[in-house]
Amino acid sequence: MWHQSQISLRPRPRGFHLVTREIADGVPELGELRIGLAHLHLLHTSASLTLNENASPDVRDDFESWFDRAVPEDAAYWTHTTEGPDDMPAHVKASLLGASLTLPVRDGSFALGTWQGVYLCEHRDRGGPRSLLVTLVGEK
Amino acid sequence: MWHQSQISLRPRPRGFHLVTREIADGVPELGELRIGLAHLHLLHTSASLTLNENASPDVRDDFESWFDRAVPEDAAYWTHTTEGPDDMPAHVKASLLGASLTLPVRDGSFALGTWQGVYLCEHRDRGGPRSLLVTLVGEK
Amino acid sequence: MWHQSQISLRPRPRGFHLVTREIADGVPELGELRIGLAHLHLLHTSASLTLNENASPDVRDDFESWFDRAVPEDAAYWTHTTEGPDDMPAHVKASLLGASLTLPVRDGSFALGTWQGVYLCEHRDRGGPRSLLVTLVGEK
Repeated sequence: MWHQSQISLRPRPRGFHLVTREIADGVPELGELRIGLAHLHLLHTSASLTLNENASPDVRDDFESWFDRAVPEDAAYWTHTTEGPDDMPAHVKASLLGASLTLPVRDGSFALGTWQGVYLCEHRDRGGPRSLLVTLVGEK
Repeated sequence: MWHQSQISLRPRPRGFHLVTREIADGVPELGELRIGLAHLHLLHTSASLTLNENASPDVRDDFESWFDRAVPEDAAYWTHTTEGPDDMPAHVKASLLGASLTLPVRDGSFALGTWQGVYLCEHRDRGGPRSLLVTLVGEK
Repeated sequence: MWHQSQISLRPRPRGFHLVTREIADGVPELGELRIGLAHLHLLHTSASLTLNENASPDVRDDFESWFDRAVPEDAAYWTHTTEGPDDMPAHVKASLLGASLTLPVRDGSFALGTWQGVYLCEHRDRGGPRSLLVTLVGEK
């Protein structure tokens, strides 16, 4: 069984946001898969996806703190500056984390660890809604 | 052909460890695939998987040196500190490298480059055994 | 439908290079897939693949600037130095970005965002040609 559809993640402020439920709700076909893989693909170059701790909001705040220091906005070496100071750091952060995730599927759900959740990593100050292309493959 | 099973990787000290063989031995069904993909998924948020050089142990030591400097334990900006000084850096390192790998499969084996091996990246001081969910798909 | 073949990416200088078209041209079987996934796997440990902005060359230059500062060649903590000063930083950069990408496929093409392109990230001074193992799976 193959399924592919595009969903729109609602706009979020710059930072790291838990979106596991929003994605699962956007692809009800997930419920039909007994065993398979789910490929989640952001169609953008200044936001990213990662898996991390799903319980403590301060973990997500600390991600923002670390990434803002690791990829600073005011570095003298940036040459691509026409789209604002948050643009080039957003591109680098997006590649460090990656635009896509492949998740195992079991019995109609993402087969994640107890503490794992999907983060939408919004690296722009005003990124707007983000388009996600979801591809499901597996057996019923 | 689909196969999915969970294996346990034995506890390792903090650092980077070559586990290609331990994983392949844990999924003998790999031998049945002529062509396919193997999805390796750690069910944790403070350890990760990556592919890198499989010959020189000093490469793996240097990974630990770099990551410990890039994501320091004593940074003043960490707010999620209740689980110990190694916890929040472990979360960031885990997302930089990623919880999962998708490997090509050919003739019953992982189709890796000559120098490529799978690293288990243990970011906690005492991470314990790590659970890995392996999903295989392909044709016989 | 399954397809797997190896292609050779022509040598590039150290830096970040747009290779979407070179890869698509190397696997004409992509055109037969109505819906599916394409797994691109570099068989190396000192080069990597990532998705990012496909229009402005200065974005790719800025990637090189950031990575060279984040993973410096002259750090005192490197112990694996026998293969030259660019070798160990190349290994770390390769793992930060990753050796492989999984791309969604739709109607015979990679289903990427408007601004997304595949970068070959060449981290060695003289990396030579790079071998890429492409695995396609999907339905016609």
